[in-house]
Amino acid sequence: MLGANWLRTQFGAAELARLAATAALGDPMATAELSSSSVRARLAVVEVLITSWGCPPLDGDVLRHAPRLRAVLHAAGSVRGHVGRAVFDRGILVTTAADANAQPVARYTLAAILWAAKKAPFLAADARTHRDDWSYRQRHGELGGSPTVVLVGFSRVGRRVARLLQLVGDMKVLVVDPFADPAAVATAGAELVTMAEALPRADVLSLHAPLRPATRHMIGGAELAALPPGATLINTARGGLVDSAALEQACRAGLHAVLDVTDPEPLPRSSVLYELPNVVITPHVAGSLGAETRAMTASALTELERYAAGLPPLAAVTAESLELQA
Amino acid sequence: MLGANWLRTQFGAAELARLAATAALGDPMATAELSSSSVRARLAVVEVLITSWGCPPLDGDVLRHAPRLRAVLHAAGSVRGHVGRAVFDRGILVTTAADANAQPVARYTLAAILWAAKKAPFLAADARTHRDDWSYRQRHGELGGSPTVVLVGFSRVGRRVARLLQLVGDMKVLVVDPFADPAAVATAGAELVTMAEALPRADVLSLHAPLRPATRHMIGGAELAALPPGATLINTARGGLVDSAALEQACRAGLHAVLDVTDPEPLPRSSVLYELPNVVITPHVAGSLGAETRAMTASALTELERYAAGLPPLAAVTAESLELQA
Repeated sequence: MLGANWLRTQFGAAELARLAATAALGDPMATAELSSSSVRARLAVVEVLITSWGCPPLDGDVLRHAPRLRAVLHAAGSVRGHVGRAVFDRGILVTTAADANAQPVARYTLAAILWAAKKAPFLAADARTHRDDWSYRQRHGELGGSPTVVLVGFSRVGRRVARLLQLVGDMKVLVVDPFADPAAVATAGAELVTMAEALPRADVLSLHAPLRPATRHMIGGAELAALPPGATLINTARGGLVDSAALEQACRAGLHAVLDVTDPEPLPRSSVLYELPNVVITPHVAGSLGAETRAMTASALTELERYAAGLPPLAAVTAESLELQA
Repeated sequence: MLGANWLRTQFGAAELARLAATAALGDPMATAELSSSSVRARLAVVEVLITSWGCPPLDGDVLRHAPRLRAVLHAAGSVRGHVGRAVFDRGILVTTAADANAQPVARYTLAAILWAAKKAPFLAADARTHRDDWSYRQRHGELGGSPTVVLVGFSRVGRRVARLLQLVGDMKVLVVDPFADPAAVATAGAELVTMAEALPRADVLSLHAPLRPATRHMIGGAELAALPPGATLINTARGGLVDSAALEQACRAGLHAVLDVTDPEPLPRSSVLYELPNVVITPHVAGSLGAETRAMTASALTELERYAAGLPPLAAVTAESLELQA
């Protein structure tokens, strides 16, 4: 469902062989558009679409050209960009590879948490200017110790981060999520609390919630002000979860932050956040990139094999679940 | 065995209470020198010394003033700075808290490995200058994928890093250590190989060897040249393990590096390594700092309690073991 570059990245020889062993429609076609005559000719006969990032919306017009379409198997994270009411109303099966996509995000987050506990990302920034004047070692407060980590959102990524922190051990983990099952949180070695309870205890506050109208700017000036001195905000989810103006103000006042996503993205050239040693920005790389995307392909191919064998999907997306997920 | 600052850092109320419950010599004395008359008066009756970083050498002269000394329980990593032949010849028990000190180093290293797999530390450096021009995303080669990690030294830290990588999963781990037990390496989910076998496969090369005459400059120009393109060197051990001139040359040519230790330390102000986006320097913070040092205190107090109860030590240091350890 995307172009040749995407096909090469997500499908190596092994993935293409696995696809050919299951799919019965001849050569797979990779396309980034759904309106040309050659694509429409294929749509007319296609039963299964494997989709990825940037797939055009599967709206009523597209679906009218795909009368035999029965399954949309997404080989990436969110289906929000291309799947909506029209697909669900047709009763088309939709699956997601979001769980596979969660692994690299969770690993990036684990690294950010452990490094932030040492203030290492911020000391690394200082080292470039302070060099052999090690007085900067004292600039960022406590270096080390086992942090109390607050995970906002017990989502696929949030659950994986909790599990990784449990494996590494010796950290207190709090979860804020109004929809989470307390027993599942406890099994992950964490404690379910309210945002108000969590913030003053958060050495690290890491965001793993979907961006929805209800979560937009869920972290604003009041929330940031409730964090203890020396705290670190980690955002690998969506920039819009945080009020950017409040974030800038808090970071100017010393809040530590590791931001893989921002709002807008990228931040404008003039943003002071590029300059502050207590802020580290990476260009939206926590999710699956390059070879990592093959795990999402494998996930979609597993769904394809299950579909072909008449087995239920492992990760179906419904109109209802889409309300709560990223 | 050090001054008041050290005492406050490593001994809180809980640690002092635990000490008082076991030690029978009245108030513990904290000192950073061993030659004043008040210290010598205490040395004359002392049976156990609890030592930490910067303890003066326990040489023949000191030992002559400590005729009843039977145990030196180190509440930090290496005893190399203060324990030598004179102590071992007297048959004095020496223990180390190096295992407790290994935890923060291993965690820092895990973070560095996972972040380096995403090139995140280097992208964070670029973000400061490239800002909203995201072309820098392409500067550092492959972003993501499960790295092959080479651990040089199956030491206390090396073993912990291997175990953490095993828990996180989905990474190939190779160990280079001429003294390691292949079965123990296999149990840690890793593979024991030679340096020549390891280098061309190392997406990440992480050093965990002690600095000894035989290991000085063990990573030189030839070793760095054998690494594949895009590789990352991580050094949390000792700067002298790496030939600094060769390192500078390799980093100028694009080698990625995360350096918590350097040679000399800190590097001179003029070093180009402070400027390269593919090099990240932190000021020797991977080991136990602040609250983390309490775990080493706990380790020394456990040894004290075992000594008082007539039990064998958990982590004795001998003249022989000191040859192989940091």
